[in-house]
Amino acid sequence: MKSSLTVVEYLIEALKAINLHHVFGVPGDFAFPINDAICNDSNIEWIGCSNELNAAYAADGYARVHGIAALNTTYGPGELSALCGVAGSFAAHLPIIFIAGMPSSSLMATDKLIHHTLGDGKFDTFAKMAAEVTIGNVVLSADNAEVEIQRIIQMALTTKLPVYIGVPEDIAYLKLENPQPFDFCYAAPHASKNVDALAQKIAMQINEARNPVVMVGEHLRVYNALVSAQTLIETANLPFATMFADKAIIDEAHPNFIGLYDGKVINRAVREVIENSDCVINLGALLTDFNTGAFSAQWPQNTINVYGDRIECDECHYDAVDLVALLDAITVLLKPRTNVDYPCYMGYRPTQVSADTAIDAASLYPRLEQFFKEGDQIIAETGTVSMGLGMAHLPKQASFHNQTLWGSIGWATPAALGAALANPQQRTVLLTGEGSHQLTVQEIGQFHRYHQTPIIFVINNNGYLIERILCKDPMIAYNDLCQWNYTLLPEAFGISDWLVAKVETNAELDKALAMAQIATTGVYIEIVTAVMETPALAANLAAQLNPARGIPVHVIAVED
Amino acid sequence: MKSSLTVVEYLIEALKAINLHHVFGVPGDFAFPINDAICNDSNIEWIGCSNELNAAYAADGYARVHGIAALNTTYGPGELSALCGVAGSFAAHLPIIFIAGMPSSSLMATDKLIHHTLGDGKFDTFAKMAAEVTIGNVVLSADNAEVEIQRIIQMALTTKLPVYIGVPEDIAYLKLENPQPFDFCYAAPHASKNVDALAQKIAMQINEARNPVVMVGEHLRVYNALVSAQTLIETANLPFATMFADKAIIDEAHPNFIGLYDGKVINRAVREVIENSDCVINLGALLTDFNTGAFSAQWPQNTINVYGDRIECDECHYDAVDLVALLDAITVLLKPRTNVDYPCYMGYRPTQVSADTAIDAASLYPRLEQFFKEGDQIIAETGTVSMGLGMAHLPKQASFHNQTLWGSIGWATPAALGAALANPQQRTVLLTGEGSHQLTVQEIGQFHRYHQTPIIFVINNNGYLIERILCKDPMIAYNDLCQWNYTLLPEAFGISDWLVAKVETNAELDKALAMAQIATTGVYIEIVTAVMETPALAANLAAQLNPARGIPVHVIAVED
Repeated sequence: MKSSLTVVEYLIEALKAINLHHVFGVPGDFAFPINDAICNDSNIEWIGCSNELNAAYAADGYARVHGIAALNTTYGPGELSALCGVAGSFAAHLPIIFIAGMPSSSLMATDKLIHHTLGDGKFDTFAKMAAEVTIGNVVLSADNAEVEIQRIIQMALTTKLPVYIGVPEDIAYLKLENPQPFDFCYAAPHASKNVDALAQKIAMQINEARNPVVMVGEHLRVYNALVSAQTLIETANLPFATMFADKAIIDEAHPNFIGLYDGKVINRAVREVIENSDCVINLGALLTDFNTGAFSAQWPQNTINVYGDRIECDECHYDAVDLVALLDAITVLLKPRTNVDYPCYMGYRPTQVSADTAIDAASLYPRLEQFFKEGDQIIAETGTVSMGLGMAHLPKQASFHNQTLWGSIGWATPAALGAALANPQQRTVLLTGEGSHQLTVQEIGQFHRYHQTPIIFVINNNGYLIERILCKDPMIAYNDLCQWNYTLLPEAFGISDWLVAKVETNAELDKALAMAQIATTGVYIEIVTAVMETPALAANLAAQLNPARGIPVHVIAVED
Repeated sequence: MKSSLTVVEYLIEALKAINLHHVFGVPGDFAFPINDAICNDSNIEWIGCSNELNAAYAADGYARVHGIAALNTTYGPGELSALCGVAGSFAAHLPIIFIAGMPSSSLMATDKLIHHTLGDGKFDTFAKMAAEVTIGNVVLSADNAEVEIQRIIQMALTTKLPVYIGVPEDIAYLKLENPQPFDFCYAAPHASKNVDALAQKIAMQINEARNPVVMVGEHLRVYNALVSAQTLIETANLPFATMFADKAIIDEAHPNFIGLYDGKVINRAVREVIENSDCVINLGALLTDFNTGAFSAQWPQNTINVYGDRIECDECHYDAVDLVALLDAITVLLKPRTNVDYPCYMGYRPTQVSADTAIDAASLYPRLEQFFKEGDQIIAETGTVSMGLGMAHLPKQASFHNQTLWGSIGWATPAALGAALANPQQRTVLLTGEGSHQLTVQEIGQFHRYHQTPIIFVINNNGYLIERILCKDPMIAYNDLCQWNYTLLPEAFGISDWLVAKVETNAELDKALAMAQIATTGVYIEIVTAVMETPALAANLAAQLNPARGIPVHVIAVED
């Protein structure tokens, strides 16, 4: 590191020090010092998005693949537009370094009426709002800049949550002489004093159990314990399941994977393994409404919830211990099991369809399952689309990203851009309903601009299907959408060389899938279905939430 | 009103009682009770927007024309996505009734992990964030619903600022028996005790002045005093000017209008009238950076700033009085002036151009000025476009809407939708740069869906021009945009019958303008200029902000 750097140059050095080489954002006058510093550094790339919310979603998708992301907006309108996306990253435990440009501190010290403010003379409003959806929050000053840059970024690394750094224009240009080199720490900071006792207790319970089963989830990623969890599973030869938010967090091609558990809603075979087990070890999966089939999951009495910040079972509660140390200690104590009898997850069964008939949900999702291939980065939009894909059995090393908890429709299209940029070596497959797609559609053009070739499936069922099945009157006006000609969008957004198709019959779908499979360009396929074509998980979830209502959907049975 | 209503029905009755018959929004599960109540009431219309930010901008545009607007989103992602737009309405003193759906109060009382939250068990986060950009903020409960609906909406009417009403699902369905009829008050609540003394003081100063001049601005609208101000001007036969944010707040065809004052930046003739006056009466114009030519405005010593919430002059400060009463009392005391000598505002001078040459800024804005006609609702996007239009002399009853203070690019496209729906009898003309247009472009489709026929001009100068002229290096990468084919957008967004054109030469522009002038459908015209084609006001403002930098722009002189 140079012996003399400006504050903003030091901040950029910090980003590079944690292996961040892309910054998503929209430029703006109060952010010029930051925008300039990024564009003038050949080791970090500015990814200009169409708007700030899309930039935040793209950063979220990037963080899902790369582990962390950076986002930069200007003051006021810029940062407020991004807040929903940053909140979504908070909900999903994704570290985002959110850098907001601010007016110079001398200007903020006056009572002048400055653009990008509410005209009330206050300059701390937006940082206060951002503080509600970030874990660390600082406005840099001459006194704190060097220390706070290191402290706040460390906080993002440690907590895996978004942080906010406000950079006043004048502070950005301040010189730091002989700034401290970075000393970032990637290990979780938890105490390990109770590890051995706790490991013995849990290992004994597993060893003594007749049919133990492991659930794996978010905290394994947050606390860097995925490898330890997989080693535990393999050493003891235990079956494992996931819930919706954590689909494919450990490879679904793993022989011990038994499938997705979603309470009463679907997958009876998995449900029976979980609910009849005499020892469920939940390694970090969160018991949210949409993870648990609207709280229809029934956890056996001997369930142990092992989170990074606490360990809970029916009669016990322990404070946080080092999750990696705990899992490794348990693994050593586990007796390997042989001749274990548990269901092997098969996913959808292949379906036979007539070539010239309309595409229905019962056959669509199984065919999409067949389409996926090793290593795919699958981005599935909130709503019926992700629920249809939730039941698919994914190939080796395929990853699956959705936004189960925050559930902001529109997230997926820009998130796919971020994922593609984070790992362009793998195929990025975006699957979205057309209603969600409308919110953030302009980000399509950026794939092309930044040389990415995603495969995009837009499932057009003429409205907000998830809402049709959840609200009182499916055909009420607010579930309708503006009728677009989706296949004209890529060209309108400046893309001339993608494979673009609109398919309405099974034969057309098969042909398009075959062409997409061998495409070397980006692919954009609109898949038209009838209005109420609903995958089973979504239909069953709606029925679970509102048993009194008869929902006119075509459901498909998965292992039921 | 019925003797028994649910809380949400009562809320909808309140909206109708203040003459609101459109609600902008995006539906969502926690908002279903609200969405249902709107769609099931034949006297209020749901305007479904493509995303929540666009809905907030559309509500802002509607409020500019109609005086007030309603916005409805779901919890969490829905409301956070709208905050930037709501903040913009706050900055512009526009009352927005922002209604957010929330989970049922019983669910919020549990510690369950619910979708659309951060997963931290907190349910007050988003209302707290909204409180920073709204003046009144309430979450309805069984105890407060009836009273608070009336109180909060009254607050919006009184302050002309956005308010927030959170409606938990269960509370929405609570029955109110014999609810109070509404008793909304539209008058400003200020005391009038000092009116007479103050009126005498101000009137005397005007009467004794040699060359008094009036500035008119935002507070006249906020405090319902526009008619009183115009009567004052006409009774005393005083010249009046406006600043940028308030362009055309009083008809620009008025014979006493002398033009736009913007400090040193432009319009020398107007500047001389203002700065050489021995009595400037500023009726409610805010002295923001972009209103005052980056604070280059020089107010004479005898300036009196008459705001709705205070009266200030060089040596005096008075608390708020009733602005209408004050202006009316002044008017009675004023001596009419005759033979007053002040410049009549001419706007741009007609320019001669060669038919086959490229369109330049120097000729573009004068020709757009010629295009406008009586009664037009002109929506001008933040950036060089609105600055180019700021110098135009608008015809009778034309209104001009821009977002000078908040300055959120992307605002104009949805705001034009709102303005069109608020007054479909008038022609709505949207003028936007292509960079700003990209942020919110999908709202184009909604014009057609809701039977509106706007005239849209997209000025494509290949990047964020306002940033090129303000930042250090005009051609730095962050000022570039994804290259779109703009004229394909209307059809992609489902519009088949609009007049669509892309023009690059003066002859093409003339032809397109002539066709647009007689069009009975919507119109979408992309106007291509060279990268740095900058209207004079923008170029001069940039020079004012950064005099050291030579800006390679083609400037045009207006009355200079």
